[in-house]
Amino acid sequence: MAQIIESIPNISEGRRMDVIEACVDEIRSTPGCTLLSFMPDESHNRTVITYIGDAKGVEEASVKLVKKAAELIDLREHKGEHPRMGAVDVMPFLAIKDCDVNDCVELSKRVGARIAEEAGVPVFLYEHSATRPERQNLVKIRKGQFEGMAEKVQDDIWEPDFGGRRIHPSAGVIAVGARPPLIAYNLNLSTDDVEIAKQIAAVIREKDGGLKCVKAMGFEIDDEKTGKKYAQVSINMTNYEQTPLYRVTEMVKSEAKKWGVTVVQSEIIGLCPMKALVDSAEYYLQIKDFDYDVQVLENHII
Amino acid sequence: MAQIIESIPNISEGRRMDVIEACVDEIRSTPGCTLLSFMPDESHNRTVITYIGDAKGVEEASVKLVKKAAELIDLREHKGEHPRMGAVDVMPFLAIKDCDVNDCVELSKRVGARIAEEAGVPVFLYEHSATRPERQNLVKIRKGQFEGMAEKVQDDIWEPDFGGRRIHPSAGVIAVGARPPLIAYNLNLSTDDVEIAKQIAAVIREKDGGLKCVKAMGFEIDDEKTGKKYAQVSINMTNYEQTPLYRVTEMVKSEAKKWGVTVVQSEIIGLCPMKALVDSAEYYLQIKDFDYDVQVLENHII
Repeated sequence: MAQIIESIPNISEGRRMDVIEACVDEIRSTPGCTLLSFMPDESHNRTVITYIGDAKGVEEASVKLVKKAAELIDLREHKGEHPRMGAVDVMPFLAIKDCDVNDCVELSKRVGARIAEEAGVPVFLYEHSATRPERQNLVKIRKGQFEGMAEKVQDDIWEPDFGGRRIHPSAGVIAVGARPPLIAYNLNLSTDDVEIAKQIAAVIREKDGGLKCVKAMGFEIDDEKTGKKYAQVSINMTNYEQTPLYRVTEMVKSEAKKWGVTVVQSEIIGLCPMKALVDSAEYYLQIKDFDYDVQVLENHII
Repeated sequence: MAQIIESIPNISEGRRMDVIEACVDEIRSTPGCTLLSFMPDESHNRTVITYIGDAKGVEEASVKLVKKAAELIDLREHKGEHPRMGAVDVMPFLAIKDCDVNDCVELSKRVGARIAEEAGVPVFLYEHSATRPERQNLVKIRKGQFEGMAEKVQDDIWEPDFGGRRIHPSAGVIAVGARPPLIAYNLNLSTDDVEIAKQIAAVIREKDGGLKCVKAMGFEIDDEKTGKKYAQVSINMTNYEQTPLYRVTEMVKSEAKKWGVTVVQSEIIGLCPMKALVDSAEYYLQIKDFDYDVQVLENHII
């Protein structure tokens, strides 16, 4: 498998395990595609599914998943904490290896067209695939949720990209699009003063003039194991090639000095692409002319 | 390609590109074998070639490489910083996937017998393939170098394993054997005083009481591109889980302070397993409770 694209769709079912298993089986049974994980959330009544493969395998699995979910999940009876608008609510595609965001945009358009055609579910293209600026943001597309969507799509600016000005009666609509891999990265400080974490977060995040592709907030964390409190800079990195892990880390360390505090530890939540870590090893070890594709042994096996 | 064996021979030519290309072409033209890289080093007058394949492909490519090198490289006219004893100086085999060190030992014996027969170059089996304990260590085999080898092989304990008690008049002898994956790692100093590199090498290497599984030497490097000279600590790491890259790096930096010099850059020669790099990212980023097998995305693919 040379090219790798990852998809992390959310289906609107987090309680009935037979339905969840039937959906996940569509991924398992598709050649060129590998299921990595699925995580049902009962209170959200929603399951995150993660799979990878080449464009062809991911396309096939994704279309099959939506067909199965549209068959088994009825939004008219769905209740849960998380806002939702479809049986499969959102389906992002991420470029992991030997491909880029443009390949994922192309994939999202092929998958979107097929979902409308084969599952009868209208499709909004979002994030990098969006055809209008207001559709880049999933939250704006989903506003009004399943219950308000039939009316919303009558508005000219909210006509779906595929499938016409309507919703599927039980499966609603879906957002499909390309987005960059995201790393959830926390830095824990040697203080419990959350104001310091908030000030550092404000300095490093893009929104307030900091590093590109960095979202950050300050939190106070209660460590139940140790009984200690500490301040945390909680970061979402939406493009680790644009802004690498080491740069964020060094900027937080540098800003922390202003307050006489240090970074005690960091955490990576969930999955992290190998290249994001290798980039930081390259930086700190000062490796000259390192050729990631050729010199990392595993790149010849994947 | 299910089974993967890697070979990383050194040929004693780092300057004449036509000769290097002719040798590398022997790998390129062999089915069942893939050339990964070759890195000519002008000051060592030596080129590291890396290729992978199944046992059959690697056997064929390896024998062809030695025949071509023996035809084109004359050790009687060879000068370079690095000790050497043959046109192809050393040819290790490493088990990468779906095979083990015993498969590599078998392969080394088949290749060794064919090199003696088809290229007329006597062969020492070394490392895991060694037939006597003193031949495990390449440095002991190579002692005396090309110039002293004709006399050395007259000694009973230094009779070659294949090819008889003689050397090839222009291509010398070769060491062939199975060895664990090794990281070739160089640290370049902010000085051209080779004595400093030698002193640091002596402090960090296992032989003289330093870090386990670390071999190190000091060299003076002439960078022909920039016209600058610098001292280099040249390291072989034979077990990066026992002694990780960051520990060696930090120890060299720390020792360099004694001389008022710094590490300017490092180099990784050839292939490096992903985990060796991720371990260093974990260290420098201070990542808490990182689960390498689960959290590195690519580990779900390999």
